[in-house]
Amino acid sequence: MLDIAIIGSGPAGLSAAINAKIRNKAVEVFGPSLKKSGNLRKAEKIDNYLGFFEISGEEMVDKFIDHASKMGVKFNEGRVVQIFETGDFYTLNVENEFIEAKTIILANGIVNERSIDGETEFLGKGVSYCATCDGPLYRGKTTVLVGDSETAEEDVNYLAGVCKKVYYVPLNKNSNKVDPRVEIVHNDKPVAISGDKTVKSLKLKNQELDVDGVFIIKDQVPTSQLLSGIEIENKAIKVNQNMETNFKGVYAAGDCTGKPFQVAKAVGQGLVAALQAVSYLHENS
Amino acid sequence: MLDIAIIGSGPAGLSAAINAKIRNKAVEVFGPSLKKSGNLRKAEKIDNYLGFFEISGEEMVDKFIDHASKMGVKFNEGRVVQIFETGDFYTLNVENEFIEAKTIILANGIVNERSIDGETEFLGKGVSYCATCDGPLYRGKTTVLVGDSETAEEDVNYLAGVCKKVYYVPLNKNSNKVDPRVEIVHNDKPVAISGDKTVKSLKLKNQELDVDGVFIIKDQVPTSQLLSGIEIENKAIKVNQNMETNFKGVYAAGDCTGKPFQVAKAVGQGLVAALQAVSYLHENS
Repeated sequence: MLDIAIIGSGPAGLSAAINAKIRNKAVEVFGPSLKKSGNLRKAEKIDNYLGFFEISGEEMVDKFIDHASKMGVKFNEGRVVQIFETGDFYTLNVENEFIEAKTIILANGIVNERSIDGETEFLGKGVSYCATCDGPLYRGKTTVLVGDSETAEEDVNYLAGVCKKVYYVPLNKNSNKVDPRVEIVHNDKPVAISGDKTVKSLKLKNQELDVDGVFIIKDQVPTSQLLSGIEIENKAIKVNQNMETNFKGVYAAGDCTGKPFQVAKAVGQGLVAALQAVSYLHENS
Repeated sequence: MLDIAIIGSGPAGLSAAINAKIRNKAVEVFGPSLKKSGNLRKAEKIDNYLGFFEISGEEMVDKFIDHASKMGVKFNEGRVVQIFETGDFYTLNVENEFIEAKTIILANGIVNERSIDGETEFLGKGVSYCATCDGPLYRGKTTVLVGDSETAEEDVNYLAGVCKKVYYVPLNKNSNKVDPRVEIVHNDKPVAISGDKTVKSLKLKNQELDVDGVFIIKDQVPTSQLLSGIEIENKAIKVNQNMETNFKGVYAAGDCTGKPFQVAKAVGQGLVAALQAVSYLHENS
């Protein structure tokens, strides 16, 4: 079991990770590799993080990853689709691999909390955030996948091999690597999910699709879906000065706690969250 | 008039300074040069500030100063002995030079708030934190200087040229560069200041000195004396998540706000304090 699972591989997550490592905790960072993506990498010049003058985002991110790697921080690029409270610990569903952790640090950045009408209501009743997890439940049935990430295409192709019929509603451009069995719905937008006890249809702006399941695959799962019951205030995770959330042993740091969206603040909060998680572990061991 | 006066030249102060500079504010950092002193400089190896792996304190401090200097941050090594609220702005007494600022960021680190019995009661009535400011008031009189800093010796020598009689109670070792007219009181400790309307004597552990004035010269003025009325809680300046204190336009960041005493937290809070000061300036201009 992990001592600390860190959700997010940005500055807050990495700062938390190195500080947990220094205190010899079993820690793992979940999130897409910053080696490939991230807004910070795109920044041309950063001047506001003390110690680095006129550094590019590219170079800064490389230094951050290098620091964490040299300290032996373990990375997991799997997408965490849900976190469950399981007695005194937590279980992460990482695309159908289940990982247990004593504490959680949420450092998942700015997350679009907007959801489709009915999304929350039908979650687990036809709505899913993970095709490889729940796809098999729809063998021989009709599903639709709404997605905005690279994973979305992999997932829709996975569903094509399992379901009788699969629709794909790409929220951004799609790369045409989609399985020919998938019916791509171009230039339309999801509006509402409806059904009875379970999902019956997805209403789009221009049409309605009769489906048994709706898969919503975004780069990031909305935090309120990731950990049901987490307190959100002004679109940010509500924390106190110790970075504590309303869940015992769950902390948050960085952009997900609200403005300012800055590296220095994220790094500082990541440290505080890690130290608080470490004290919690000592008190509860 | 300064937009932002930053009290303290450590990581919190410098982080605040570079972020205020980026936003084109007139900013000045008050405090002893980190080039010469500071606990951070003495650290052998620092691993917990994201981006720097196995860096020495020496090297880190140099990078910090270099960053701030390259961004044009102005330093003032004068000791701020008192801050007064003056209508909608603040006036700093920097060893008798008076500097005005619209906002203040307190980043004065861990300050020993312990005072001598009677110190607060007789402040301004025979007790002073600044020899060059108040020395002339004691021309031809008897004074004692209690001190623990390098400045203390300079100040006691200054008093020797002004007062009839000067005692010096060094709290640490003294360097023997003291004016021969000064009577050094070895191996004793101040216990209480007493008097009537004004100071009459300083009681030490082993003797009592009849004096008209008591100068207390420490590296750092206790925050509660520096800005009378500032709210202190658990030996730290009380702040909210926006680093606001109980004074309008006065923010605090870094070790002075309490644990953890860590560079990353100081840098993050310095940034937040600067951004808050900047919004305050925009709202009140």
